[in-house]
Amino acid sequence: MGPVDAPTIDLNADLGEGFGAWRLTDDDALLDVVTSANVACGFHAGDASTMRRVCAAAAARGVVVGAQVSYRDLAGFGRRFIDADPAELLDEVVYQVAALAGLAAAEGTSVRYVKPHGALYNALVHHEAQARAVVAAVRDAAAVTGTPLPVLGLPGSVVERLAAEGGVPFVAEAFTDRAYTPQATLVPRREPGAVLDDPAEVAARAVALATDETVTTREGGTVTVRARSLCLHGDTPGAVATGRAVRAALEAAGVTLAPFA
Amino acid sequence: MGPVDAPTIDLNADLGEGFGAWRLTDDDALLDVVTSANVACGFHAGDASTMRRVCAAAAARGVVVGAQVSYRDLAGFGRRFIDADPAELLDEVVYQVAALAGLAAAEGTSVRYVKPHGALYNALVHHEAQARAVVAAVRDAAAVTGTPLPVLGLPGSVVERLAAEGGVPFVAEAFTDRAYTPQATLVPRREPGAVLDDPAEVAARAVALATDETVTTREGGTVTVRARSLCLHGDTPGAVATGRAVRAALEAAGVTLAPFA
Amino acid sequence: MGPVDAPTIDLNADLGEGFGAWRLTDDDALLDVVTSANVACGFHAGDASTMRRVCAAAAARGVVVGAQVSYRDLAGFGRRFIDADPAELLDEVVYQVAALAGLAAAEGTSVRYVKPHGALYNALVHHEAQARAVVAAVRDAAAVTGTPLPVLGLPGSVVERLAAEGGVPFVAEAFTDRAYTPQATLVPRREPGAVLDDPAEVAARAVALATDETVTTREGGTVTVRARSLCLHGDTPGAVATGRAVRAALEAAGVTLAPFA
Amino acid sequence: MGPVDAPTIDLNADLGEGFGAWRLTDDDALLDVVTSANVACGFHAGDASTMRRVCAAAAARGVVVGAQVSYRDLAGFGRRFIDADPAELLDEVVYQVAALAGLAAAEGTSVRYVKPHGALYNALVHHEAQARAVVAAVRDAAAVTGTPLPVLGLPGSVVERLAAEGGVPFVAEAFTDRAYTPQATLVPRREPGAVLDDPAEVAARAVALATDETVTTREGGTVTVRARSLCLHGDTPGAVATGRAVRAALEAAGVTLAPFA
Repeated sequence: MGPVDAPTIDLNADLGEGFGAWRLTDDDALLDVVTSANVACGFHAGDASTMRRVCAAAAARGVVVGAQVSYRDLAGFGRRFIDADPAELLDEVVYQVAALAGLAAAEGTSVRYVKPHGALYNALVHHEAQARAVVAAVRDAAAVTGTPLPVLGLPGSVVERLAAEGGVPFVAEAFTDRAYTPQATLVPRREPGAVLDDPAEVAARAVALATDETVTTREGGTVTVRARSLCLHGDTPGAVATGRAVRAALEAAGVTLAPFA
Repeated sequence: MGPVDAPTIDLNADLGEGFGAWRLTDDDALLDVVTSANVACGFHAGDASTMRRVCAAAAARGVVVGAQVSYRDLAGFGRRFIDADPAELLDEVVYQVAALAGLAAAEGTSVRYVKPHGALYNALVHHEAQARAVVAAVRDAAAVTGTPLPVLGLPGSVVERLAAEGGVPFVAEAFTDRAYTPQATLVPRREPGAVLDDPAEVAARAVALATDETVTTREGGTVTVRARSLCLHGDTPGAVATGRAVRAALEAAGVTLAPFA
Repeated sequence: MGPVDAPTIDLNADLGEGFGAWRLTDDDALLDVVTSANVACGFHAGDASTMRRVCAAAAARGVVVGAQVSYRDLAGFGRRFIDADPAELLDEVVYQVAALAGLAAAEGTSVRYVKPHGALYNALVHHEAQARAVVAAVRDAAAVTGTPLPVLGLPGSVVERLAAEGGVPFVAEAFTDRAYTPQATLVPRREPGAVLDDPAEVAARAVALATDETVTTREGGTVTVRARSLCLHGDTPGAVATGRAVRAALEAAGVTLAPFA
Repeated sequence: MGPVDAPTIDLNADLGEGFGAWRLTDDDALLDVVTSANVACGFHAGDASTMRRVCAAAAARGVVVGAQVSYRDLAGFGRRFIDADPAELLDEVVYQVAALAGLAAAEGTSVRYVKPHGALYNALVHHEAQARAVVAAVRDAAAVTGTPLPVLGLPGSVVERLAAEGGVPFVAEAFTDRAYTPQATLVPRREPGAVLDDPAEVAARAVALATDETVTTREGGTVTVRARSLCLHGDTPGAVATGRAVRAALEAAGVTLAPFA
C-alpha cells in the first residue's frame, strides 16, 4: 500500500452551524479552505437564511454543498443520542436534505451528498435500524435532488455496509485532528491525546493520509486509513488557522484538492 | 355575469396539521373530498412523517399537493402575526416548500402550489414587504420543484397584485363557510354570523360560487366573487360532514371538480 | 400480606398534555376522577396557559398538583430516550418544576410532587446517572416550592433507591391497566396482553391493588404489589370511562381516595 | 433639576443569552461590572444550565438577579413583535419568571425584578393589552417568589402607567449608549448616530445621567432623564470594555453603585 500517483483528496467541514442571532463557525474563512461544505439543515443548527447564505458563498467559490443532517435537537446541538423511531428518522432526514436542496437551488447550486452530524454520526457506526433509516432517506431524497447522493461517513461503520447493500454510494473520511488506534479506529474523545491541536502536526497528518493512506497511531506506529475526504473541525478557536495549514501543506505536497461529489 | 358553461371548481383544505403525538385534522376523510391538499410544512404544524403520510394518501387519490407555509410558530399554530424580517421570511418559505417537495417526491408526487397559512395569509392581504417576500420565495422555490408554482390566496389582496408584478401565477379562492360583505370582503370572525356551520347552507353557497360566481351577503343581497378554488375548513368538528355535503351538492349541480394546478 | 384495615389509595393521571392548538387529554373529566394531577410542564407537552388552566381546575376540586417532568422533546412527546447530560437534565427538571410552581401559585395551589414522564420515567428504572440527576433536581426544586417534594415512580427502580439515599421521599405507584409478571414487573408493551382495556377488569384490579396489595399476573397467579398510588392513563379513547369505573369500584369497596402529598 | 447629593445608580445588562452550544454574552466579565443581571429565561435565549450558572455567578458577586422575559421566539431572539394573545402572554411571563426563580433558589439567590426583552420591551412602550398582561403576570409571579417584583423599563411607557395603576413597582432605566431626542425619547436605531460606541463618551454620559439626571441630545442640547438604573449592552464586541469604562467613571465621580431591588 505504497503512495498513490497523483493523490487527490477532498476537504470537508461543518458550516452554517449558527441559529438566528447565534454564530459558531467562521463560514467565509472556512469556505476558502474546504472543497466540500457540510451545511447544517435546521435540526441541530442552521436557520434558513444561514443555510442560503452558506450555499451562495459556497457556489461563488466552487465548493460543493452537502446536507449535514441531524436528530431534531437544537438545545443539544445534535450531540445527544436520541432513540428515534427509525421510520420517523427516515422522514426527518428527507425533510432536511430537501429543505437545503431548495435553498441551494435558489442560489444556483445543489446538494450533492449527505453527512450525518454529531450523535447521529456516531450512532450510525453501530446502530442497524437508524443506519438503515438514513440510507433509505438518502435514497428517497434523490427523488427531489434528481441525482443519487453519496453518504459521507466513517469507514468500517454499519452505515457503510448498509449503504453498499442499499445501492447508495459511500465515501470514507478521515479526521486530521483525531488520534487513531493501531486498529485504525478513533481514540475516544475522553481519553488523553484524543484531539490534536497543533496546526503543523495536523497538517503533516493530512499529507500522510492523502499521499500514503497512513496515519501515525497514538502509540507511535503507523496504520493504514483509506479516505477520499478529510474532515476539518470548524467549531474550535483555531479552526481557520489549522484549516489553512492543512490546505497549504497538501498543496505543497502536490496533492490535488477536489470534491468527491 | 351569468352562469358559466361547464363550471369547474377546485376544493382545497388544510391537512396534516398534527405534530408528533397530536392530531387535528381527519386527513383521510378529507382527502376523499378535496381536489387539492394544503399540507402543513412543519412551521405551524406538520412533522415529517405526517407530511409524508398525507402526500402518499393524496397521491393515491389523485389529489394535488400544495405547501401550506407559515410563520415559525408551533406554540401559536401560526395564528399570530409575527413581524418577521422579509428576507428571513423569504428563506423560511423556500425551506418549507422544498422540505415538502422532498417528501412528496419520495411518494411519487410533487408540490404544485403554495398556500400561506393563518396569520401569514392574513398579513399578505395588506403587508407589502411580507407579500413581496412570499412571492419571491415561491419564485425561488421553483428552482427545486422544477416548475412554476402558483400562490393560492384571497382575491384583491396585496399578494395577488405583487404576484402579477413578479410573474408568479395567482389563484383566487373563496370561503364556503364565511359570511361576505356587499363589497365582497370577508366579515371579520369576531362579528356575529361571520362563520356558517349548517352543512346544507354551506353546500348551497358552494354551488352558487361555482356556478354563478356569486354569494349571498350577510345582509341578504348578492355579490360577485370569482374563485377557481373553494376553501373547506378541516379543523372543526363538523368539517368532514360539511365537506361531503359540499362535494355532493357540487356534483349534483353538474360542477366539475378539478384541481387548478 | 392480608388486607389492610381502612385502605387508602391515590389516583393519578397525566393531564394538560396539549400544546397550543392541540389537545390530548380530557382534563376536566379526569380531574373529577383523580386525586393527583401530573401536569405536563412544557418539555413534552403543556403550554403555559394549559398548565395554569389545569392548576385552576385542580385547585377547584381539591386535586393535588404534581410536576410531570420530561426530556425536552415536543416532537417525540417525551417518549424517546435522550442521552442527556445528567447535569443539564438536572437543571431542566428544576426549570420545569419551578415553572409549574409559578402557575400553580398564581392559582392558589402548589406543586406537591414530581412524576417523570415517558422515556425519562423508563430510564429512571435503570439509568443511574439520570436517576441521580432527577433526585438532585427534586431536592433543589424544594428551594422554590418551600417544601420537600416526593418522587412518584415504579417500585424497585433505581430512582427509588437513589431517592432513599438522597433523602428524597419516594412514592410507589401501580398501573391498573398493565399486565404484571410473576416477578411483579410490568409486561413490556410490545407483548400481547400487556395493556388491558376492559373497564370492569381494570376496576377490579384497582380494588385488589388497593385492598389486598395484589394483582393477578398474566399467567393467572397472584403477586404482591405495594403502591400508594394507582396510575390511570389519560390519553386513550376510553380513558374517562375507565377512570370513572375505577373510582366507583374503589368507593364501593370502601377504599378511601386520598392524595399522598 | 440640579445634581442630587450622594447619587446612587444601578447598572444592568442582559446576560445568559446563549442557548445550548451557542454563547453570546461574556457573562463572567459583565457580572464584574453590573449590579443587576437580566437573566434570559429560555424563550428568546437561555437554557436551564446557563440560567443556573449565571445565577450562581451573580450570587457569588452580590449581583441581583432579574428575569429577562420574552416572546417565545428562539429563532428570532425575541426581536420580532408577535401579536400574542394577552392571556397567553401573561401565563408565559409567569412561566419564565418562575422557572428562573427555581434555578435562582437552587443557587441561594432569588429573582428580584422583571425586565421585558427586545420586541416585547418595545411593544410595552405603547401596546396597552400586552402591557396590561405583563403587569398582571409580574403581580401573579410574586406568588411564587414570595415578594413583589418591580418591572424595569422605559420611563413614559404605557407599562409604567399600567404598573402604577396595578400596584406593581416600576423602575425607570436609561441607555448609556443610545442617542436621545430633545423630548427625552430614544433616537430610533435605524437613524444615523443612534448608537454610540466610544467607551469614553458612553462613560461620560453615564456620569451625567447618574449625577445630573441629564443627557446630551443628538443635537447638542441637554435634556432631563431620570433613571434609577443604567442599561449596558452586553452583546456587542466592545461590551465589556465599555462596561468597565462606565463603572470606573461612575466610581471616580463618587456615584454609589447599588441595585434597586
